[in-house]
Amino acid sequence: MKQLVIKLMAERGVSLADVADLVYALQRPFYPALLLEQCTRSIENVLEKREVQFAFLTGITLDVLAEQGRLPEPLQTIIASDEPLYGIDEVLALGITNVYGTIGLTNFGYLDKTKLGILSVLNDAPQAVHTFLDDLVAGLAAAASARLAHNGRALSNEQQVR
Amino acid sequence: MKQLVIKLMAERGVSLADVADLVYALQRPFYPALLLEQCTRSIENVLEKREVQFAFLTGITLDVLAEQGRLPEPLQTIIASDEPLYGIDEVLALGITNVYGTIGLTNFGYLDKTKLGILSVLNDAPQAVHTFLDDLVAGLAAAASARLAHNGRALSNEQQVR
Amino acid sequence: MKQLVIKLMAERGVSLADVADLVYALQRPFYPALLLEQCTRSIENVLEKREVQFAFLTGITLDVLAEQGRLPEPLQTIIASDEPLYGIDEVLALGITNVYGTIGLTNFGYLDKTKLGILSVLNDAPQAVHTFLDDLVAGLAAAASARLAHNGRALSNEQQVR
Amino acid sequence: MKQLVIKLMAERGVSLADVADLVYALQRPFYPALLLEQCTRSIENVLEKREVQFAFLTGITLDVLAEQGRLPEPLQTIIASDEPLYGIDEVLALGITNVYGTIGLTNFGYLDKTKLGILSVLNDAPQAVHTFLDDLVAGLAAAASARLAHNGRALSNEQQVR
Repeated sequence: MKQLVIKLMAERGVSLADVADLVYALQRPFYPALLLEQCTRSIENVLEKREVQFAFLTGITLDVLAEQGRLPEPLQTIIASDEPLYGIDEVLALGITNVYGTIGLTNFGYLDKTKLGILSVLNDAPQAVHTFLDDLVAGLAAAASARLAHNGRALSNEQQVR
Repeated sequence: MKQLVIKLMAERGVSLADVADLVYALQRPFYPALLLEQCTRSIENVLEKREVQFAFLTGITLDVLAEQGRLPEPLQTIIASDEPLYGIDEVLALGITNVYGTIGLTNFGYLDKTKLGILSVLNDAPQAVHTFLDDLVAGLAAAASARLAHNGRALSNEQQVR
Repeated sequence: MKQLVIKLMAERGVSLADVADLVYALQRPFYPALLLEQCTRSIENVLEKREVQFAFLTGITLDVLAEQGRLPEPLQTIIASDEPLYGIDEVLALGITNVYGTIGLTNFGYLDKTKLGILSVLNDAPQAVHTFLDDLVAGLAAAASARLAHNGRALSNEQQVR
Repeated sequence: MKQLVIKLMAERGVSLADVADLVYALQRPFYPALLLEQCTRSIENVLEKREVQFAFLTGITLDVLAEQGRLPEPLQTIIASDEPLYGIDEVLALGITNVYGTIGLTNFGYLDKTKLGILSVLNDAPQAVHTFLDDLVAGLAAAASARLAHNGRALSNEQQVR
């Protein structure tokens, strides 16, 4: 199912490299020798968790149905317009972030607010609905960052990792 | 929107009285003079929260789409079969329960496991899909119970409330 | 640090075997061939997570300080009397349960309400303060159960696991 | 108890005005006519929630005990050094933020990472331990912001609020 999630993300405009860029931006300051490849590996590990896969399947499905105008009202309008008080997108993303503990929370919030990299691309696509996808991607990057931080000491004893 | 949620719940087989029975069963031991009417009022209050309304709209929509076979695979099969590891239904319900603090958590878990009252009716309906609805109803009853407990002292000084 | 947590739990009256009994009671119905030894191994795995260790360290410390009357008021009275609306004990336990996804939530709530096995022993100890410990132990058992359920198919293809 | 929490915060170096500055910075872009006074009122409302009060009491107590060197090891060192993987401080703050729904999450993460205003003052105090306090204050500001956003339409129909 992991491969299916990666394929769905790609169809919706997000590559693993896009997510790795976010993880790299978050973790580089704490871990100067960090390689993009380590970020990608951490993301792939997070994507192996079934809870994460289910969150992506559910959220992307709701985005696509909204894009096709096939949801019942008022949900159709709420999701299609990315209503700021909706909150269910963030609830799903939180399920991803929690997989590596609450330290991922900070990074999730930061990404969600600053709309780094691919997140602003998703946010600015005029025709597409990415109400869930941008939060899911931020949650995935935050969880992969938390995972790197938890494993930091194993990777390097000389470097401070967060 | 609150009235819409109540109407949707009714169409899916759940009345406010069904939910009030759950709240009553949970809170009666701690609060002997409790009236069903107080339970109903507490539920109505919880249903005024926008986050709660959005969770019901989203979850019921997914149940109905799965019942109609209109979700893409593998999500269609996962939701239609109430796959035990899915977890997204519980994530949505948790959003409801949290609205009155974490003390609702215990009651949510208890209801979800014991399938009291309407919850076993929902669970045993052979043709229908209630993957989200049973968790949402348990979450609503748990939140309404937590709300009663928080307000307990105001209602009665002589009675121990949980 | 894992060994320290196990030692602290033992000093406070909880052995790994006590927790394994809870996991066994929760999972046996879904998994008839389950061995107590598999439950213990699952618990040990959960106890390797740093987030879990930190929750135990923090909660047990607060219990012990309350038992010794060394917390400032009103926190001293709130924790010593296991004030039902306190909720912070459940917040810490939730951090443990989430480590294996939200499916642990149901079991946590069920254990917290039914006070199975060691949980009722902890709850009925007249002199001791176990405000945090009983929730932490319920959270640990719930997470270990969720972990077994997630790994269930690997263990056995013929048996339904939850 | 609300007054006690405000007094404890003041003793630890945080005034309601400091928190109001954070809320103002977060909400001003979405709500140009926002007054500092509205921010303060929103914070006072959040502080009336018992769950929020309990989180502050617990977290500040742990900070103070760590500052006085009175916690048992290894918890003493973990809290005194604000160990980045500890996470329990963020778990407590999350309990606060959730009180007004998950939309507070984004702001919490943003504040926790950017260390706006009073948060950087708390973080840079060399002798003091503010491991819990900075997260609690960020959580309080995030919850007060979410509350303003939820009430935004009532306050003004012409202004976009988040």
